[in-house]
Amino acid sequence: MTYELYYWDGIQGRGEFVRLSLEEAGAEYVDVARESGSGRGTSAMMNLMRSGSDPHIPFAPPFLKDGDLVIPHVANILLYLGPKLGLVPKQEGLLYVLNGLQLTVADFVAEVHDTHHPIATSLYYEDQKDEAKARSAAFIKERMPKFLGYFERVLRQNPQGPQHILGDALTYVDLSLFQIIEGLNYAFPNAMTGYQAKYPALSALHDTVARRPNIAAYLKSERRIAFNEDGIFRHYPELDKGA
Amino acid sequence: MTYELYYWDGIQGRGEFVRLSLEEAGAEYVDVARESGSGRGTSAMMNLMRSGSDPHIPFAPPFLKDGDLVIPHVANILLYLGPKLGLVPKQEGLLYVLNGLQLTVADFVAEVHDTHHPIATSLYYEDQKDEAKARSAAFIKERMPKFLGYFERVLRQNPQGPQHILGDALTYVDLSLFQIIEGLNYAFPNAMTGYQAKYPALSALHDTVARRPNIAAYLKSERRIAFNEDGIFRHYPELDKGA
Repeated sequence: MTYELYYWDGIQGRGEFVRLSLEEAGAEYVDVARESGSGRGTSAMMNLMRSGSDPHIPFAPPFLKDGDLVIPHVANILLYLGPKLGLVPKQEGLLYVLNGLQLTVADFVAEVHDTHHPIATSLYYEDQKDEAKARSAAFIKERMPKFLGYFERVLRQNPQGPQHILGDALTYVDLSLFQIIEGLNYAFPNAMTGYQAKYPALSALHDTVARRPNIAAYLKSERRIAFNEDGIFRHYPELDKGA
Repeated sequence: MTYELYYWDGIQGRGEFVRLSLEEAGAEYVDVARESGSGRGTSAMMNLMRSGSDPHIPFAPPFLKDGDLVIPHVANILLYLGPKLGLVPKQEGLLYVLNGLQLTVADFVAEVHDTHHPIATSLYYEDQKDEAKARSAAFIKERMPKFLGYFERVLRQNPQGPQHILGDALTYVDLSLFQIIEGLNYAFPNAMTGYQAKYPALSALHDTVARRPNIAAYLKSERRIAFNEDGIFRHYPELDKGA
Protein backbone atom coordinates (compact mmCIF):
# COMPACT_ATOMS: atom_id res chain seq x y z
CA MET A 1 0.00 0.00 0.00
CA THR A 2 1.37 3.41 -0.99
CA TYR A 3 1.00 6.05 1.72
CA GLU A 4 -0.33 9.44 0.68
CA LEU A 5 1.21 12.43 2.47
CA TYR A 6 -0.72 15.69 2.25
CA TYR A 7 1.20 18.86 3.00
CA TRP A 8 1.81 22.30 1.53
CA ASP A 9 4.00 22.35 -1.57
CA GLY A 10 7.20 24.42 -1.57
CA ILE A 11 8.31 24.08 2.04
CA GLN A 12 9.80 21.46 4.35
CA GLY A 13 7.58 22.58 7.22
CA ARG A 14 5.94 20.08 9.51
CA GLY A 15 5.64 17.58 6.66
CA GLU A 16 9.40 17.07 6.76
CA PHE A 17 9.24 15.18 10.05
CA VAL A 18 7.02 12.61 8.34
CA ARG A 19 9.11 12.52 5.15
CA LEU A 20 12.29 11.71 7.08
CA SER A 21 10.71 8.60 8.60
CA LEU A 22 9.25 7.45 5.29
CA GLU A 23 12.61 8.01 3.56
CA GLU A 24 14.65 6.28 6.26
CA ALA A 25 12.42 3.22 5.99
CA GLY A 26 12.36 3.28 2.19
CA ALA A 27 8.57 3.29 2.28
CA GLU A 28 6.48 3.92 -0.79
CA TYR A 29 4.66 7.22 -0.55
CA VAL A 30 3.23 9.96 -2.68
CA ASP A 31 3.78 13.57 -1.64
CA VAL A 32 0.38 14.46 -3.02
CA ALA A 33 0.51 18.26 -3.21
CA ARG A 34 3.97 18.18 -4.78
CA GLU A 35 3.59 15.37 -7.23
CA SER A 36 0.19 15.79 -8.79
CA GLY A 37 1.26 18.83 -10.79
CA SER A 38 -0.26 22.23 -11.47
CA GLY A 39 -2.00 22.65 -8.14
CA ARG A 40 -4.14 19.54 -8.52
CA GLY A 41 -2.61 17.93 -5.44
CA THR A 42 -3.12 21.02 -3.34
CA SER A 43 -6.74 21.19 -4.49
CA ALA A 44 -7.23 17.55 -3.49
CA MET A 45 -5.79 18.40 -0.07
CA MET A 46 -8.05 21.41 0.40
CA ASN A 47 -11.12 19.48 -0.80
CA LEU A 48 -10.47 16.80 1.79
CA MET A 49 -10.20 19.42 4.54
CA ARG A 50 -13.28 21.33 3.36
CA SER A 51 -15.45 18.30 2.75
CA GLY A 52 -19.00 18.88 3.92
CA SER A 53 -19.71 15.18 4.34
CA ASP A 54 -16.55 13.24 5.29
CA PRO A 55 -16.62 12.15 8.93
CA HIS A 56 -12.87 12.48 9.54
CA ILE A 57 -11.78 15.88 8.31
CA PRO A 58 -8.36 17.19 9.37
CA PHE A 59 -8.02 20.66 10.85
CA ALA A 60 -4.76 21.35 9.00
CA PRO A 61 -1.96 19.68 7.02
CA PRO A 62 0.04 17.55 7.29
CA PHE A 63 -2.14 14.48 7.22
CA LEU A 64 -1.55 10.96 6.00
CA LYS A 65 -3.97 8.83 4.04
CA ASP A 66 -3.59 5.08 4.31
CA GLY A 67 -6.49 3.51 2.48
CA ASP A 68 -9.62 4.98 4.03
CA LEU A 69 -7.89 6.15 7.17
CA VAL A 70 -7.05 9.89 7.36
CA ILE A 71 -4.54 10.69 10.10
CA PRO A 72 -3.70 14.31 11.01
CA HIS A 73 -0.88 15.79 13.16
CA VAL A 74 2.80 14.90 12.86
CA ALA A 75 3.10 13.08 16.19
CA ASN A 76 -0.05 11.09 15.44
CA ILE A 77 1.15 10.15 11.94
CA LEU A 78 4.49 9.00 13.32
CA LEU A 79 2.80 7.02 16.09
CA TYR A 80 0.77 5.25 13.40
CA LEU A 81 3.66 4.73 10.99
CA GLY A 82 6.39 3.99 13.54
CA PRO A 83 5.60 0.31 14.16
CA LYS A 84 5.03 -0.32 10.43
CA LEU A 85 8.34 1.34 9.50
CA GLY A 86 10.35 -0.32 12.28
CA LEU A 87 11.06 3.00 13.99
CA VAL A 88 9.78 2.32 17.51
CA PRO A 89 11.06 0.31 20.48
CA LYS A 90 9.65 -3.18 20.87
CA GLN A 91 8.30 -2.76 24.42
CA GLU A 92 4.73 -1.45 24.21
CA GLY A 93 4.81 0.92 27.19
CA LEU A 94 7.75 2.73 25.62
CA LEU A 95 5.47 3.86 22.77
CA TYR A 96 3.97 6.38 25.18
CA VAL A 97 7.41 7.57 26.21
CA LEU A 98 8.33 7.94 22.54
CA ASN A 99 5.08 9.75 21.77
CA GLY A 100 5.73 12.09 24.71
CA LEU A 101 9.14 12.97 23.27
CA GLN A 102 7.65 13.62 19.83
CA LEU A 103 4.98 15.86 21.38
CA THR A 104 7.76 17.84 23.06
CA VAL A 105 9.34 18.20 19.60
CA ALA A 106 5.94 19.43 18.34
CA ASP A 107 5.76 22.07 21.08
CA PHE A 108 9.29 23.20 20.26
CA VAL A 109 8.40 23.49 16.56
CA ALA A 110 5.32 25.56 17.41
CA GLU A 111 7.51 27.94 19.42
CA VAL A 112 9.97 28.21 16.51
CA HIS A 113 7.05 29.18 14.27
CA ASP A 114 5.90 31.84 16.70
CA THR A 115 9.32 33.53 16.71
CA HIS A 116 8.40 35.03 13.33
CA HIS A 117 4.62 35.08 13.87
CA PRO A 118 4.02 36.02 17.51
CA ILE A 119 0.82 38.02 16.95
CA ALA A 120 -1.13 36.43 14.10
CA THR A 121 -0.58 33.78 11.44
CA SER A 122 -2.76 35.88 9.15
CA LEU A 123 -0.42 38.88 9.27
CA TYR A 124 2.81 39.22 7.29
CA TYR A 125 6.06 38.87 9.18
CA GLU A 126 6.83 42.48 8.28
CA ASP A 127 3.71 43.59 10.14
CA GLN A 128 4.82 41.95 13.41
CA LYS A 129 8.57 42.40 13.16
CA ASP A 130 9.09 44.27 16.44
CA GLU A 131 7.12 41.67 18.35
CA ALA A 132 9.02 38.94 16.48
CA LYS A 133 12.30 40.45 17.68
CA ALA A 134 11.12 40.40 21.28
CA ARG A 135 9.80 36.87 21.03
CA SER A 136 12.95 35.62 19.28
CA ALA A 137 15.18 37.16 21.95
CA ALA A 138 13.24 35.30 24.65
CA PHE A 139 13.27 32.14 22.54
CA ILE A 140 17.05 32.23 22.09
CA LYS A 141 17.74 33.13 25.70
CA GLU A 142 15.30 30.84 27.45
CA ARG A 143 13.35 28.41 25.35
CA MET A 144 16.00 27.10 22.95
CA PRO A 145 18.43 26.16 25.77
CA LYS A 146 15.57 24.69 27.78
CA PHE A 147 14.41 22.40 24.96
CA LEU A 148 17.89 21.50 23.67
CA GLY A 149 19.14 20.98 27.21
CA TYR A 150 16.21 18.68 27.88
CA PHE A 151 16.85 16.49 24.85
CA GLU A 152 20.57 16.41 25.67
CA ARG A 153 19.75 15.17 29.18
CA VAL A 154 17.37 12.50 27.87
CA LEU A 155 20.08 11.25 25.51
CA ARG A 156 22.71 11.18 28.26
CA GLN A 157 20.38 9.46 30.73
CA ASN A 158 19.42 6.74 28.27
CA PRO A 159 20.57 3.55 30.03
CA GLN A 160 21.26 2.03 26.60
CA GLY A 161 23.68 4.83 25.74
CA PRO A 162 23.42 8.34 24.28
CA GLN A 163 23.36 7.19 20.65
CA HIS A 164 19.55 7.17 20.65
CA ILE A 165 16.84 9.12 22.46
CA LEU A 166 15.05 5.92 23.55
CA GLY A 167 16.22 2.32 23.67
CA ASP A 168 19.14 0.95 21.68
CA ALA A 169 17.97 1.54 18.12
CA LEU A 170 16.86 4.33 15.82
CA THR A 171 13.35 5.73 16.34
CA TYR A 172 11.39 8.43 14.57
CA VAL A 173 12.19 10.86 17.38
CA ASP A 174 15.91 10.55 16.55
CA LEU A 175 15.06 11.60 13.00
CA SER A 176 12.95 14.50 14.29
CA LEU A 177 15.80 15.72 16.48
CA PHE A 178 18.08 15.71 13.43
CA GLN A 179 15.57 17.97 11.70
CA ILE A 180 15.34 20.28 14.72
CA ILE A 181 19.12 20.81 14.66
CA GLU A 182 19.11 21.31 10.89
CA GLY A 183 16.34 23.88 11.17
CA LEU A 184 17.87 25.80 14.06
CA ASN A 185 21.24 25.90 12.29
CA TYR A 186 19.48 27.44 9.31
CA ALA A 187 17.28 29.88 11.20
CA PHE A 188 19.57 30.97 14.03
CA PRO A 189 23.20 30.34 12.96
CA ASN A 190 24.61 32.83 15.47
CA ALA A 191 22.63 31.49 18.37
CA MET A 192 23.67 27.95 17.39
CA THR A 193 27.39 28.75 17.20
CA GLY A 194 29.22 26.31 19.44
CA TYR A 195 26.18 24.14 20.04
CA GLN A 196 28.33 21.02 19.50
CA ALA A 197 30.22 21.68 22.73
CA LYS A 198 27.09 22.50 24.70
CA TYR A 199 25.02 19.61 23.40
CA PRO A 200 27.51 16.91 22.40
CA ALA A 201 25.05 14.01 22.45
CA LEU A 202 22.50 15.88 20.32
CA SER A 203 25.21 17.01 17.96
CA ALA A 204 26.53 13.45 17.58
CA LEU A 205 23.01 12.16 16.98
CA HIS A 206 22.49 14.78 14.28
CA ASP A 207 25.69 13.74 12.50
CA THR A 208 24.93 10.02 12.76
CA VAL A 209 21.48 10.47 11.29
CA ALA A 210 22.86 12.59 8.42
CA ARG A 211 25.20 9.71 7.49
CA ARG A 212 22.56 7.00 7.37
CA PRO A 213 22.45 5.81 3.75
CA ASN A 214 18.75 6.44 3.08
CA ILE A 215 18.83 9.82 4.81
CA ALA A 216 22.05 10.87 3.07
CA ALA A 217 20.52 9.91 -0.29
CA TYR A 218 17.34 11.79 0.53
CA LEU A 219 19.20 14.94 1.58
CA LYS A 220 20.98 14.97 -1.78
CA SER A 221 17.80 14.32 -3.75
CA GLU A 222 15.42 16.83 -5.27
CA ARG A 223 12.79 15.68 -2.81
CA ARG A 224 14.63 17.53 -0.03
CA ILE A 225 13.79 21.10 -0.90
CA ALA A 226 15.86 23.83 0.72
CA PHE A 227 14.81 25.73 3.82
CA ASN A 228 13.18 29.02 2.89
CA GLU A 229 11.26 31.93 4.36
CA ASP A 230 7.82 30.38 3.82
CA GLY A 231 8.50 27.46 6.16
CA ILE A 232 8.66 26.99 9.91
CA PHE A 233 12.42 27.55 10.23
CA ARG A 234 13.11 30.95 8.64
CA HIS A 235 16.37 32.81 8.51
CA TYR A 236 15.75 36.45 9.33
CA PRO A 237 19.15 37.82 10.43
CA GLU A 238 17.43 40.48 12.55
CA LEU A 239 15.90 37.76 14.72
CA ASP A 240 19.18 35.93 15.36
CA LYS A 241 21.46 36.42 18.34
CA GLY A 242 23.50 39.63 18.36
CA ALA A 243 21.38 41.30 15.68
CA MET B 1 -3.76 0.56 40.74
CA THR B 2 -4.14 4.22 41.73
CA TYR B 3 -3.03 6.65 39.03
CA GLU B 4 -0.81 9.54 40.05
CA LEU B 5 -1.45 12.82 38.26
CA TYR B 6 1.32 15.41 38.48
CA TYR B 7 0.37 18.98 37.72
CA TRP B 8 0.72 22.47 39.20
CA ASP B 9 -1.35 23.14 42.27
CA GLY B 10 -3.85 26.02 42.28
CA ILE B 11 -5.02 26.00 38.66
CA GLN B 12 -7.19 23.90 36.36
CA GLY B 13 -4.74 24.35 33.48
CA ARG B 14 -3.85 21.48 31.19
CA GLY B 15 -4.26 19.00 34.05
CA GLU B 16 -8.02 19.56 33.96
CA PHE B 17 -8.39 17.69 30.66
CA VAL B 18 -6.97 14.61 32.38
CA ARG B 19 -9.01 15.12 35.57
CA LEU B 20 -12.29 15.24 33.64
CA SER B 21 -11.63 11.81 32.13
CA LEU B 22 -10.57 10.29 35.44
CA GLU B 23 -13.61 11.77 37.16
CA GLU B 24 -16.07 10.68 34.46
CA ALA B 25 -14.77 7.12 34.74
CA GLY B 26 -14.71 7.16 38.53
CA ALA B 27 -11.07 6.10 38.43
CA GLU B 28 -8.89 6.13 41.51
CA TYR B 29 -6.23 8.79 41.28
CA VAL B 30 -4.09 11.03 43.41
CA ASP B 31 -3.61 14.64 42.37
CA VAL B 32 -0.09 14.56 43.75
CA ALA B 33 0.85 18.25 43.92
CA ARG B 34 -2.50 19.14 45.49
CA GLU B 35 -2.91 16.35 47.94
CA SER B 36 0.49 15.82 49.50
CA GLY B 37 0.29 19.03 51.51
CA SER B 38 2.71 21.89 52.18
CA GLY B 39 4.51 21.76 48.84
CA ARG B 40 5.68 18.18 49.25
CA GLY B 41 3.77 17.04 46.16
CA THR B 42 5.12 19.88 44.04
CA SER B 43 8.64 19.02 45.21
CA ALA B 44 8.09 15.39 44.21
CA MET B 45 6.96 16.60 40.79
CA MET B 46 9.97 18.87 40.33
CA ASN B 47 12.36 16.16 41.52
CA LEU B 48 11.00 13.76 38.94
CA MET B 49 11.48 16.34 36.18
CA ARG B 50 14.95 17.33 37.35
CA SER B 51 16.20 13.82 37.98
CA GLY B 52 19.75 13.36 36.80
CA SER B 53 19.39 9.63 36.39
CA ASP B 54 15.83 8.64 35.43
CA PRO B 55 15.59 7.59 31.80
CA HIS B 56 12.07 8.93 31.17
CA ILE B 57 12.00 12.50 32.41
CA PRO B 58 9.08 14.72 31.35
CA PHE B 59 9.73 18.15 29.87
CA ALA B 60 6.77 19.70 31.71
CA PRO B 61 3.63 18.88 33.69
CA PRO B 62 1.10 17.40 33.42
CA PHE B 63 2.32 13.85 33.50
CA LEU B 64 0.78 10.64 34.74
CA LYS B 65 2.50 7.92 36.69
CA ASP B 66 1.10 4.43 36.43
CA GLY B 67 3.44 2.11 38.26
CA ASP B 68 6.85 2.63 36.70
CA LEU B 69 5.53 4.26 33.55
CA VAL B 70 5.77 8.07 33.37
CA ILE B 71 3.59 9.55 30.62
CA PRO B 72 3.78 13.24 29.71
CA HIS B 73 1.49 15.45 27.55
CA VAL B 74 -2.28 15.63 27.87
CA ALA B 75 -3.07 13.96 24.53
CA ASN B 76 -0.61 11.16 25.29
CA ILE B 77 -2.02 10.60 28.79
CA LEU B 78 -5.56 10.44 27.40
CA LEU B 79 -4.48 8.06 24.64
CA TYR B 80 -3.04 5.80 27.33
CA LEU B 81 -5.96 6.11 29.74
CA GLY B 82 -8.77 6.16 27.17
CA PRO B 83 -9.04 2.41 26.58
CA LYS B 84 -8.67 1.66 30.32
CA LEU B 85 -11.39 4.17 31.23
CA GLY B 86 -13.80 3.15 28.45
CA LEU B 87 -13.56 6.53 26.75
CA VAL B 88 -12.49 5.50 23.22
CA PRO B 89 -14.30 3.93 20.26
CA LYS B 90 -13.94 0.18 19.87
CA GLN B 91 -12.52 0.20 16.30
CA GLU B 92 -8.73 0.47 16.53
CA GLY B 93 -8.13 2.77 13.53
CA LEU B 94 -10.45 5.31 15.11
CA LEU B 95 -7.95 5.78 17.95
CA TYR B 96 -5.79 7.77 15.54
CA VAL B 97 -8.76 9.87 14.51
CA LEU B 98 -9.54 10.49 18.19
CA ASN B 99 -5.91 11.32 18.95
CA GLY B 100 -5.88 13.74 16.01
CA LEU B 101 -8.91 15.54 17.44
CA GLN B 102 -7.30 15.75 20.89
CA LEU B 103 -4.11 17.17 19.34
CA THR B 104 -6.23 19.84 17.66
CA VAL B 105 -7.64 20.62 21.12
CA ALA B 106 -4.03 20.85 22.37
CA ASP B 107 -3.12 23.35 19.63
CA PHE B 108 -6.20 25.40 20.45
CA VAL B 109 -5.27 25.44 24.16
CA ALA B 110 -1.72 26.58 23.31
CA GLU B 111 -3.17 29.46 21.29
CA VAL B 112 -5.45 30.40 24.19
CA HIS B 113 -2.39 30.52 26.44
CA ASP B 114 -0.55 32.76 24.02
CA THR B 115 -3.37 35.34 24.00
CA HIS B 116 -2.05 36.52 27.38
CA HIS B 117 1.59 35.52 26.83
CA PRO B 118 2.44 36.25 23.20
CA ILE B 119 6.07 37.27 23.77
CA ALA B 120 7.50 35.20 26.61
CA THR B 121 6.23 32.82 29.27
CA SER B 122 8.91 34.23 31.56
CA LEU B 123 7.50 37.77 31.45
CA TYR B 124 4.50 38.99 33.43
CA TYR B 125 1.27 39.57 31.53
CA GLU B 126 1.54 43.25 32.44
CA ASP B 127 4.85 43.44 30.55
CA GLN B 128 3.32 42.19 27.29
CA LYS B 129 -0.16 43.65 27.55
CA ASP B 130 -0.13 45.59 24.27
CA GLU B 131 1.03 42.54 22.35
CA ALA B 132 -1.55 40.45 24.22
CA LYS B 133 -4.28 42.81 23.03
CA ALA B 134 -3.15 42.46 19.42
CA ARG B 135 -2.87 38.67 19.66
CA SER B 136 -6.24 38.36 21.42
CA ALA B 137 -7.96 40.46 18.75
CA ALA B 138 -6.63 38.13 16.05
CA PHE B 139 -7.53 35.10 18.16
CA ILE B 140 -11.13 36.26 18.63
CA LYS B 141 -11.55 37.32 15.00
CA GLU B 142 -9.84 34.41 13.24
CA ARG B 143 -8.65 31.53 15.37
CA MET B 144 -11.56 31.04 17.77
CA PRO B 145 -14.15 30.81 14.94
CA LYS B 146 -11.81 28.59 12.95
CA PHE B 147 -11.34 26.06 15.76
CA LEU B 148 -14.93 26.17 17.05
CA GLY B 149 -16.28 26.02 13.49
CA TYR B 150 -14.10 23.00 12.84
CA PHE B 151 -15.34 21.08 15.88
CA GLU B 152 -18.93 22.04 15.05
CA ARG B 153 -18.48 20.61 11.54
CA VAL B 154 -16.94 17.39 12.85
CA LEU B 155 -19.90 16.95 15.22
CA ARG B 156 -22.44 17.61 12.48
CA GLN B 157 -20.70 15.32 10.02
CA ASN B 158 -20.54 12.42 12.47
CA PRO B 159 -22.53 9.70 10.70
CA GLN B 160 -23.61 8.42 14.14
CA GLY B 161 -25.16 11.79 15.00
CA PRO B 162 -23.93 15.10 16.44
CA GLN B 163 -24.19 13.97 20.08
CA HIS B 164 -20.53 12.88 20.07
CA ILE B 165 -17.40 14.00 18.27
CA LEU B 166 -16.56 10.43 17.18
CA GLY B 167 -18.69 7.31 17.07
CA ASP B 168 -21.88 6.80 19.05
CA ALA B 169 -20.59 7.04 22.62
CA LEU B 170 -18.75 9.40 24.92
CA THR B 171 -14.97 9.77 24.39
CA TYR B 172 -12.34 11.82 26.16
CA VAL B 173 -12.43 14.37 23.34
CA ASP B 174 -16.09 15.11 24.17
CA LEU B 175 -14.97 15.89 27.72
CA SER B 176 -12.15 18.09 26.43
CA LEU B 177 -14.55 20.05 24.23
CA PHE B 178 -16.73 20.67 27.28
CA GLN B 179 -13.68 22.14 29.02
CA ILE B 180 -12.83 24.30 26.00
CA ILE B 181 -16.31 25.85 26.05
CA GLU B 182 -16.16 26.33 29.83
CA GLY B 183 -12.78 28.03 29.53
CA LEU B 184 -13.72 30.30 26.65
CA ASN B 185 -16.93 31.35 28.42
CA TYR B 186 -14.81 32.33 31.40
CA ALA B 187 -12.00 34.06 29.51
CA PHE B 188 -13.91 35.74 26.68
CA PRO B 189 -17.57 36.15 27.75
CA ASN B 190 -18.23 38.96 25.24
CA ALA B 191 -16.70 37.10 22.33
CA MET B 192 -18.68 33.98 23.31
CA THR B 193 -22.03 35.80 23.50
CA GLY B 194 -24.49 33.97 21.27
CA TYR B 195 -22.18 31.03 20.67
CA GLN B 196 -25.10 28.64 21.23
CA ALA B 197 -26.74 29.79 18.00
CA LYS B 198 -23.51 29.70 16.02
CA TYR B 199 -22.30 26.35 17.31
CA PRO B 200 -25.45 24.46 18.31
CA ALA B 201 -23.90 20.97 18.27
CA LEU B 202 -20.92 22.06 20.41
CA SER B 203 -23.22 23.91 22.77
CA ALA B 204 -25.48 20.85 23.13
CA LEU B 205 -22.45 18.63 23.75
CA HIS B 206 -21.23 21.01 26.45
CA ASP B 207 -24.59 20.92 28.21
CA THR B 208 -24.91 17.13 27.96
CA VAL B 209 -21.44 16.61 29.44
CA ALA B 210 -22.19 19.03 32.29
CA ARG B 211 -25.26 16.94 33.23
CA ARG B 212 -23.48 13.57 33.36
CA PRO B 213 -23.71 12.40 36.99
CA ASN B 214 -19.98 11.98 37.64
CA ILE B 215 -19.10 15.24 35.90
CA ALA B 216 -21.91 17.16 37.65
CA ALA B 217 -20.71 15.80 41.02
CA TYR B 218 -17.11 16.72 40.19
CA LEU B 219 -18.03 20.26 39.14
CA LYS B 220 -19.73 20.80 42.48
CA SER B 221 -16.88 19.27 44.48
CA GLU B 222 -13.89 21.03 46.00
CA ARG B 223 -11.67 19.18 43.54
CA ARG B 224 -12.93 21.48 40.75
CA ILE B 225 -11.12 24.67 41.63
CA ALA B 226 -12.35 27.87 40.01
CA PHE B 227 -10.81 29.40 36.89
CA ASN B 228 -8.32 32.10 37.83
CA GLU B 229 -5.67 34.37 36.36
CA ASP B 230 -2.80 31.93 36.90
CA GLY B 231 -4.24 29.30 34.56
CA ILE B 232 -4.55 28.89 30.79
CA PHE B 233 -8.01 30.47 30.48
CA ARG B 234 -7.72 33.92 32.07
CA HIS B 235 -10.33 36.62 32.19
CA TYR B 236 -8.71 39.94 31.38
CA PRO B 237 -11.59 42.22 30.28
CA GLU B 238 -9.19 44.29 28.16
CA LEU B 239 -8.48 41.23 25.97
CA ASP B 240 -12.14 40.38 25.35
CA LYS B 241 -14.19 41.52 22.37
CA GLY B 242 -15.28 45.15 22.34
CA ALA B 243 -12.77 46.18 25.01
